[in-house]
Amino acid sequence: MKILVIHGPNLNLLGSRETTVYGEDTLSDINGRISALCRELGMEAEIFQSNSEGGIVDAIQQKTYDLLIINPAAYTHTSVAIRDAVAAVGRPAIEVHISNIYKREDFRHHSYISGVAVGQICGLGVDGYLLAVRAAHKLLTA
Amino acid sequence: MKILVIHGPNLNLLGSRETTVYGEDTLSDINGRISALCRELGMEAEIFQSNSEGGIVDAIQQKTYDLLIINPAAYTHTSVAIRDAVAAVGRPAIEVHISNIYKREDFRHHSYISGVAVGQICGLGVDGYLLAVRAAHKLLTA
Amino acid sequence: MKILVIHGPNLNLLGSRETTVYGEDTLSDINGRISALCRELGMEAEIFQSNSEGGIVDAIQQKTYDLLIINPAAYTHTSVAIRDAVAAVGRPAIEVHISNIYKREDFRHHSYISGVAVGQICGLGVDGYLLAVRAAHKLLTA
Amino acid sequence: MKILVIHGPNLNLLGSRETTVYGEDTLSDINGRISALCRELGMEAEIFQSNSEGGIVDAIQQKTYDLLIINPAAYTHTSVAIRDAVAAVGRPAIEVHISNIYKREDFRHHSYISGVAVGQICGLGVDGYLLAVRAAHKLLTA
Amino acid sequence: MKILVIHGPNLNLLGSRETTVYGEDTLSDINGRISALCRELGMEAEIFQSNSEGGIVDAIQQKTYDLLIINPAAYTHTSVAIRDAVAAVGRPAIEVHISNIYKREDFRHHSYISGVAVGQICGLGVDGYLLAVRAAHKLLTA
Amino acid sequence: MKILVIHGPNLNLLGSRETTVYGEDTLSDINGRISALCRELGMEAEIFQSNSEGGIVDAIQQKTYDLLIINPAAYTHTSVAIRDAVAAVGRPAIEVHISNIYKREDFRHHSYISGVAVGQICGLGVDGYLLAVRAAHKLLTA
Amino acid sequence: MKILVIHGPNLNLLGSRETTVYGEDTLSDINGRISALCRELGMEAEIFQSNSEGGIVDAIQQKTYDLLIINPAAYTHTSVAIRDAVAAVGRPAIEVHISNIYKREDFRHHSYISGVAVGQICGLGVDGYLLAVRAAHKLLTA
Amino acid sequence: MKILVIHGPNLNLLGSRETTVYGEDTLSDINGRISALCRELGMEAEIFQSNSEGGIVDAIQQKTYDLLIINPAAYTHTSVAIRDAVAAVGRPAIEVHISNIYKREDFRHHSYISGVAVGQICGLGVDGYLLAVRAAHKLLTA
Amino acid sequence: MKILVIHGPNLNLLGSRETTVYGEDTLSDINGRISALCRELGMEAEIFQSNSEGGIVDAIQQKTYDLLIINPAAYTHTSVAIRDAVAAVGRPAIEVHISNIYKREDFRHHSYISGVAVGQICGLGVDGYLLAVRAAHKLLTA
Amino acid sequence: MKILVIHGPNLNLLGSRETTVYGEDTLSDINGRISALCRELGMEAEIFQSNSEGGIVDAIQQKTYDLLIINPAAYTHTSVAIRDAVAAVGRPAIEVHISNIYKREDFRHHSYISGVAVGQICGLGVDGYLLAVRAAHKLLTA
Amino acid sequence: MKILVIHGPNLNLLGSRETTVYGEDTLSDINGRISALCRELGMEAEIFQSNSEGGIVDAIQQKTYDLLIINPAAYTHTSVAIRDAVAAVGRPAIEVHISNIYKREDFRHHSYISGVAVGQICGLGVDGYLLAVRAAHKLLTA
Amino acid sequence: MKILVIHGPNLNLLGSRETTVYGEDTLSDINGRISALCRELGMEAEIFQSNSEGGIVDAIQQKTYDLLIINPAAYTHTSVAIRDAVAAVGRPAIEVHISNIYKREDFRHHSYISGVAVGQICGLGVDGYLLAVRAAHKLLTA
Repeated sequence: MKILVIHGPNLNLLGSRETTVYGEDTLSDINGRISALCRELGMEAEIFQSNSEGGIVDAIQQKTYDLLIINPAAYTHTSVAIRDAVAAVGRPAIEVHISNIYKREDFRHHSYISGVAVGQICGLGVDGYLLAVRAAHKLLTA
Repeated sequence: MKILVIHGPNLNLLGSRETTVYGEDTLSDINGRISALCRELGMEAEIFQSNSEGGIVDAIQQKTYDLLIINPAAYTHTSVAIRDAVAAVGRPAIEVHISNIYKREDFRHHSYISGVAVGQICGLGVDGYLLAVRAAHKLLTA
Repeated sequence: MKILVIHGPNLNLLGSRETTVYGEDTLSDINGRISALCRELGMEAEIFQSNSEGGIVDAIQQKTYDLLIINPAAYTHTSVAIRDAVAAVGRPAIEVHISNIYKREDFRHHSYISGVAVGQICGLGVDGYLLAVRAAHKLLTA
Repeated sequence: MKILVIHGPNLNLLGSRETTVYGEDTLSDINGRISALCRELGMEAEIFQSNSEGGIVDAIQQKTYDLLIINPAAYTHTSVAIRDAVAAVGRPAIEVHISNIYKREDFRHHSYISGVAVGQICGLGVDGYLLAVRAAHKLLTA
Repeated sequence: MKILVIHGPNLNLLGSRETTVYGEDTLSDINGRISALCRELGMEAEIFQSNSEGGIVDAIQQKTYDLLIINPAAYTHTSVAIRDAVAAVGRPAIEVHISNIYKREDFRHHSYISGVAVGQICGLGVDGYLLAVRAAHKLLTA
Repeated sequence: MKILVIHGPNLNLLGSRETTVYGEDTLSDINGRISALCRELGMEAEIFQSNSEGGIVDAIQQKTYDLLIINPAAYTHTSVAIRDAVAAVGRPAIEVHISNIYKREDFRHHSYISGVAVGQICGLGVDGYLLAVRAAHKLLTA
Repeated sequence: MKILVIHGPNLNLLGSRETTVYGEDTLSDINGRISALCRELGMEAEIFQSNSEGGIVDAIQQKTYDLLIINPAAYTHTSVAIRDAVAAVGRPAIEVHISNIYKREDFRHHSYISGVAVGQICGLGVDGYLLAVRAAHKLLTA
Repeated sequence: MKILVIHGPNLNLLGSRETTVYGEDTLSDINGRISALCRELGMEAEIFQSNSEGGIVDAIQQKTYDLLIINPAAYTHTSVAIRDAVAAVGRPAIEVHISNIYKREDFRHHSYISGVAVGQICGLGVDGYLLAVRAAHKLLTA
Repeated sequence: MKILVIHGPNLNLLGSRETTVYGEDTLSDINGRISALCRELGMEAEIFQSNSEGGIVDAIQQKTYDLLIINPAAYTHTSVAIRDAVAAVGRPAIEVHISNIYKREDFRHHSYISGVAVGQICGLGVDGYLLAVRAAHKLLTA
Repeated sequence: MKILVIHGPNLNLLGSRETTVYGEDTLSDINGRISALCRELGMEAEIFQSNSEGGIVDAIQQKTYDLLIINPAAYTHTSVAIRDAVAAVGRPAIEVHISNIYKREDFRHHSYISGVAVGQICGLGVDGYLLAVRAAHKLLTA
Repeated sequence: MKILVIHGPNLNLLGSRETTVYGEDTLSDINGRISALCRELGMEAEIFQSNSEGGIVDAIQQKTYDLLIINPAAYTHTSVAIRDAVAAVGRPAIEVHISNIYKREDFRHHSYISGVAVGQICGLGVDGYLLAVRAAHKLLTA
Repeated sequence: MKILVIHGPNLNLLGSRETTVYGEDTLSDINGRISALCRELGMEAEIFQSNSEGGIVDAIQQKTYDLLIINPAAYTHTSVAIRDAVAAVGRPAIEVHISNIYKREDFRHHSYISGVAVGQICGLGVDGYLLAVRAAHKLLTA
């Protein structure tokens, strides 16, 4: 049982900028916590960050995994290519957003990904990733 | 630490109808699992179901609790009154949807509640409630 | 063979107010004619009126019947909860409107119920209920 | 007392195509049932089918009748000319749709005819015509 | 110098129906006045009425004329085919409406024809045709 | 001369919550001031608060009064049922909002009630009720 | 019988600028032709041009006339004040546009004036004014 | 304590035209009643009417006053300049409409002014000005 | 293997008008090339042109063929009747447009036919028909 | 080489009000800097401010200049008349906004002027005028 | 004569995934058939696939070719950059879609590319590429 | 003081293509002028061009600079990722467009970047970059 975690554009800046919105954890901290929880639940985790839409499509296609946890960040609202990649590989995906996108600008209220994901967790901070890991474990062991 | 869990209209039918959409767990099964996890995490849970918008507003106002977990069901999309009640009492709220509302009819893509909730969990089945309990524990012990 | 007839909000005022729009028959007169026609066709009828959305949802869930005839009145245009209740119980429903809702204000041109009903009869006055009873008989004896 | 029944475009194919949507009755079967019921109720019926918008406008203008029952089919959604003809002749009209147009594509949710018709019956199958005949009888003998 | 005058659907009923909206002149009266004014101005007039969109397209294509005066009536708002015919033949066209279409239903506020016509006269009653004849004379003798 | 004052959902919390938006007067304080002014002007006042849409519809139908002052709160924006009740009873109604709804979220800019009310007072705080009482007195003694 | 002709903003530049769109006649030329035709038809004409919305409202209110011919130019699309002035004085108005506004930018397709005018003449060049004078004569002598 | 009352375009016609909509009081009558009430409440009033948007902006900028009562009439729906002037001078403003703008044409349902005013009174006839004076007194003496 | 080729309204004018847009081939030239290619590929072709929507519906229903190639021209954008006819007969259809409809007016960007066609070829001139014939051959021999 | 600088409504208040948004420079300060830079670049400047739409149209028409620098302020979003004046005089225009209109209310995101201006400078404070002067110099000496 | 064929994101998965939608041909199979047909028609083909929007822009700019055949896949609906690249290089482009995008989700009905392409072929499966090659040959040898 | 200048997709083609729209300066010419002006004003400039959205996000994150001048070209209208990067790094940004985007296609009228930029310069040709450099100098030395 292996999960792939994809962090979209600008998430590499987590913890260093806009900490009032996104909190003070760095991406490295978060990844550590994701990996630890995966190990605890008996799952392997691969984690990938990219600022490139095409790079994320490549990763979704080429990586080996049983379930995808994806925070598409800005591409949530603009990328049909990532949506199509998720649909094409046919493995379950869980969408995560650190902030509550429904409290932000109107253009962030629509996600191209949610239509092909199993479900969505948003607004619960970086813990959202850990909840997604638990949901992933549940889905893969159901 | 006490949480209030509110189930909106028609959720009392869970497990007996439309099981292909909502699964075979009855509301009673789900409530049992919620209560058990709360106990495990050292929290008290009160659980309330109503088909009445006004009844849900009353409960949000009158019950005693530190955090609200709410699946407003159909009222998600139509109730400003529940939104206002959540905002008025000023306690944190987590919105849960069993199904992925973004894969369903267009009118289910908008939530009046998400604008006043901390965050939202949707599409992850009845386990969404348990993830919300974990998130609640995190928020209340942070 | 039993049908449930639900009259939505303000229909209890029929015959006493706005008679130029809705005619001079009282709800009691109409119910008498519905019951008589049901008996004539060998069906039992239960008739329920409420001004409360939640009360109508409760009735749809809890009453025993083979087919629902519903005039949701104002809730036609605003209630996802009633729609969901109709869908959840899974029994056939016929939507009735006394006036022609397509000749009235724009917000009355959309019905949340018609998407889950078998069909709709509107603009034919209180006789619309009787036509619905005939259609119900046809559907239940087909 | 004479009614004119107009069947719009493609309804001549009834019973031979798309029978899962429209049922297995042919237009000829339906017309037989309409005529029989009219006779039973002491009314005369003339029945007309055309695939031509202009042909339907001509019929509405030129035929002699006391009340029009019209299933404008595809022209429901696109024909101002038929609407204007119905309004111009000034006789009561009842709109019939075999399927529930509100469950179909969005462009079928709007009718140009309903704004000038007395009322509408939809989704009740070919029995909708018979219900319309009963409603016509009621209107003409009121 | 010859003009073609086309009257669209339902205009054959002029003077016999809805006289409060359209006045008491019959189409025959109007045509007489159009012909007389044309003669007075030294122009020939051919006048054509049809309830059929295709029939109007045929006429626009096949008739011989220097300028078209067209009251497309209901087809104003729905016919791309008539628009295309006017554009294809490449002769100047003047659009006439007896009533003020901008005071009527919203769907009558848009004309497919005005985008290909030289100009439009509306709301000035049947005299609008005579004004159009004068404008035609001006355009053809400029 | 008797007026009925209806306070909609969540207004029972006035003075205890969100005091920066709604002020520090409790509903009881406000009601006292309304009653006092009514007495001063020689009118009787009955005051009713409910969180239930159906309950408000019931009150509008069943109470005895010459004029309605209503702050529908959240139901302003979602309730066709309250609108229909106001229209059905046919007595004059004045709509009051404590805050300026036109400075708040877009969904609060539309009122279903204003289309059936005599007029609206908004943004003038709880004094808006007293102004409405004065307006009521004027209307009833005109 | 006196008519008031109002030319809106920028029409004072006619004949000196954008002559490919508006022709080479100056406003003075046009006014001369209008006055001449009025005299010929036994009517008096007063002609007024202003670049100011308020100035046009003042003129509509204060001038003495039996019928208004108005080319509101840019204010056609933005002025509720001119619309209200036309409606308030209650005298018939004919709207004229030199160019075909329906062939230009989208924002020129809507007129606030046409809803209160008797009719509209557009796209027929400066002759449109003369046609309007003829229509005015007809209306005033009918 | 001094208030400035501004009447927008066409309000100078009050009492002489469209009396079924706006009543039979002339602007002079109304101004008399406003001044009287101001004196009674110990406030000074200056009253200004203009048909010119720029003139109203000038007045808002140049007059001396503690609070503005403004009925922007037609400019309510079209003037960003008046909105900006009200915001720029930074003194409280109360918006008044004699008729209920929410019962009239759609374009009258939006006010550019309400976003910068304290509150709005509409539909209560010319008494709306007097209620605004009372509200002004309250605001200035709070 | 027989194909039916339908040319919609105004296509009979091809080669004689607007040749800069549609090219210099007459409809007769094009039909010759279509027939020749069909023969070459071992298929029979029937070719039909009409300016009448109803005439095209009749042809779709009554002709005998294995596959339809249709250029609905103006009816592309307005005809639900043709769409329904194509769907009703249940044979594969290929939509052809000579010009690139997506480079033209907005109202030409939507096709009612493409939702029921196998596919669409547009903007490739009259060769589009020949490509459609090749595609037809492929589909019928697959 | 002479430029005309037009400041729209409420800009006369610059430096005295809303200084956090628009800065502390008075219009007089700004005009001094504009004039100085023009002299430095060998150009003459005339500067005009008005709160009146018509007054601005008049100035655009009547002043003598080679290039227009215009900050239409509120009229940016509502004035077709100013747009038409700019287009009619046919001299190059540069649009300036002190604040970033794209960060403000939605109704400020659209400019009627930008469609007829050479270009736009916004959000760069009062220095925007000086940048526009440099751009003007460049355009006039190119 | 050389053509460049560009396959957009996820098309590298053709034949291995979602074969019911896209068929069982792999991209390699398709490319073989394209190359073969090009050779047969005396043209050279270069074929390029990328998941990266920027990579596709680079290819359009840098490759050497006489005509572009492009299936932009997901970027069809979101990429102005690819549109601009096609327009900038100024060589003819033919847009291909394997599936009928007009039968899929609404967001797939709009193409940014079609506005700069010669034409479009969609819904005809992988044969669409071969038809495009034929069309290319025609265009280049015309 | 160092500025980063980013040129978005297709701007590398400047001067070689579409010279009537964008002028004859090559990107290299423009960069030379930018660098020269920066040196003159005592600032350092780094200049970067990419066709890749992700590459631009990377540059915004990783380069060292005090202020960003960005012409996002096509990504102006589609990239939330670049917007988020600009917001995340928190340094001032000035948006430049060579052409007047408000005179082009509707989809070019909206910029995702302007909401996070200090200001925007558009339509002033390649001189827009130099004006931005001056504005940058002003902002950094204020």
